[in-house]
Amino acid sequence: MREGEFDLIARIRERADAARDDVVIGIGDDAALLQVPLGRQLVVTMDALNAGVHFPADTPPADIGWKALAVNLSDLAAMGAQPAWCTLSLSLPQSDAGWIDAFLDGFLTLARQHGVALVGGDTTRGPLSVCVAAHGFVDPGKALCRDGARVGDDIWVTGTLGDAAAALARWRGSSSSPGVAEHANGAALRGRLDRPTPRVATGLALAGIASACIDLSDGLFADLGHVCAASGIGGVVDIDALPASQALLAGFDRETRRRLQAGGGDDYELCFTAASTASLRIAEIAIATGVRITRIGSMAAGERSVRGHLADGTAWSPSHTGYDHFAAD
Amino acid sequence: MREGEFDLIARIRERADAARDDVVIGIGDDAALLQVPLGRQLVVTMDALNAGVHFPADTPPADIGWKALAVNLSDLAAMGAQPAWCTLSLSLPQSDAGWIDAFLDGFLTLARQHGVALVGGDTTRGPLSVCVAAHGFVDPGKALCRDGARVGDDIWVTGTLGDAAAALARWRGSSSSPGVAEHANGAALRGRLDRPTPRVATGLALAGIASACIDLSDGLFADLGHVCAASGIGGVVDIDALPASQALLAGFDRETRRRLQAGGGDDYELCFTAASTASLRIAEIAIATGVRITRIGSMAAGERSVRGHLADGTAWSPSHTGYDHFAAD
Repeated sequence: MREGEFDLIARIRERADAARDDVVIGIGDDAALLQVPLGRQLVVTMDALNAGVHFPADTPPADIGWKALAVNLSDLAAMGAQPAWCTLSLSLPQSDAGWIDAFLDGFLTLARQHGVALVGGDTTRGPLSVCVAAHGFVDPGKALCRDGARVGDDIWVTGTLGDAAAALARWRGSSSSPGVAEHANGAALRGRLDRPTPRVATGLALAGIASACIDLSDGLFADLGHVCAASGIGGVVDIDALPASQALLAGFDRETRRRLQAGGGDDYELCFTAASTASLRIAEIAIATGVRITRIGSMAAGERSVRGHLADGTAWSPSHTGYDHFAAD
Repeated sequence: MREGEFDLIARIRERADAARDDVVIGIGDDAALLQVPLGRQLVVTMDALNAGVHFPADTPPADIGWKALAVNLSDLAAMGAQPAWCTLSLSLPQSDAGWIDAFLDGFLTLARQHGVALVGGDTTRGPLSVCVAAHGFVDPGKALCRDGARVGDDIWVTGTLGDAAAALARWRGSSSSPGVAEHANGAALRGRLDRPTPRVATGLALAGIASACIDLSDGLFADLGHVCAASGIGGVVDIDALPASQALLAGFDRETRRRLQAGGGDDYELCFTAASTASLRIAEIAIATGVRITRIGSMAAGERSVRGHLADGTAWSPSHTGYDHFAAD
């Protein structure tokens, strides 16, 4: 079934009616008209996903929809922000109502979980690509930034690391990840790649507790490296303390796991720093938000970069530090 | 010269430092942190441009940068909003510092003209595509919407119509526009396609005066049709009153001009309605903002669509009503 652009927009509008009092005008005018709550600051992020770059070409449209919003909500989580609104720009090779409906199934399921209203955007013809902007709120002075880490702060991560990279490695047919293709836990890993969980509640709870925070999209060493650069200090990571899922443990040898966990991207977990006095509070947040939180190292004086070591003290670093979209493969 | 993604972002960040007191955190963290002025509402729009769809493949990168922001500022203008911030998602087949610099030349020139700060976004690898979200402010109750037109209101347009469509027709090699290719005014028309002028000051001045407003991206009949649909009434347009540029007048016969002016898109002029008692005030706004404003018809009871007539009263309509990105060519 093919429809024109105006029909597509009407279709999206019809399904997007999230009731929020702060949406004065949503989809259907030249722009959305919105009311930021009195006394709160606005947090804005924008990320695009391109077919074949950010997701495998065979990814189900519902998963593309989920992920396109999830990566943006993850950015809001990393700022400790409460999500509110989003806009969606969807580029499609051809109008396809079935594809759009499936895409919206994933997108709007996640939006509803977080009370996010889809308030605008556009649809265009072109290569499959999804761009989302997400908006949220923080109390003044409470946003989690990258530049607040201090020497001696603990480094923590939510969830487990490396699952998405393991699934990505299989998608790319990378010879560096033997055994993943035939592994029975492939579906679990693929689920983590296609439907990442933005750690919104955990990010909110960490506002005022974490000293710095970032979400893990490019890989632990790359992203924690941004915190080091912004904070002007170094980070020391205990590689053998990095949390791993059962699927990752079952499917990969130890050295491969280390590389996936420390160097692989797309986990969309939070990595944050906090004074050691906050440990008990962090344990309570883990319980309250139902998310595993693991201490993986500490911030240190010296070079503004990340150093890794194994349990026996041996220095260790991943072969590459994060996924650079423009790096030569 | 090729650079990695982080270098590109650093390059954009370095050039984007627009000083606005309401930008608490701009480019460089997980999201931007912004302060909406007390008592104002937020206006948000988002539009993407794809190579070969929204601009000819040979468009200079500076013009792509200009246009990507201009089409979004045009949406803010159509709401009567004061532009403030934007985010930019740039998809490029390969990292190219020269291309990025030229793109930013166009983008940031227009941003500075309107005091707009570039506060975030991302760069990705993929087909050439630019997605921009723009943010602005309006006083509560003052936003220009599509649904406020009343029977008897005059219909007005800013600037001249049809130039961009004339340039587009040449780009597409359309046989329906004979003579355009060899016309000496081609550069003037192409300039209107590549560097549209968002009518920001005029839109701001019209807040509280226009009863409805829309920007002309898909063509007069299509866009005014949205005003008719939202307002629940019809529009009657005097086709021979549509304002034409010298370049259009010199290059096309009368019937071709009519089709380009009434049916062609990409003008990014404002089309608005207002009570006839506002005519003098509108003339003053035209002078104050240096923009031609022409009365082209009036709103009428009946079917929620646009009817056209020539000076002699003959009914007239364009062969197609606006550019639909998903319509079969």
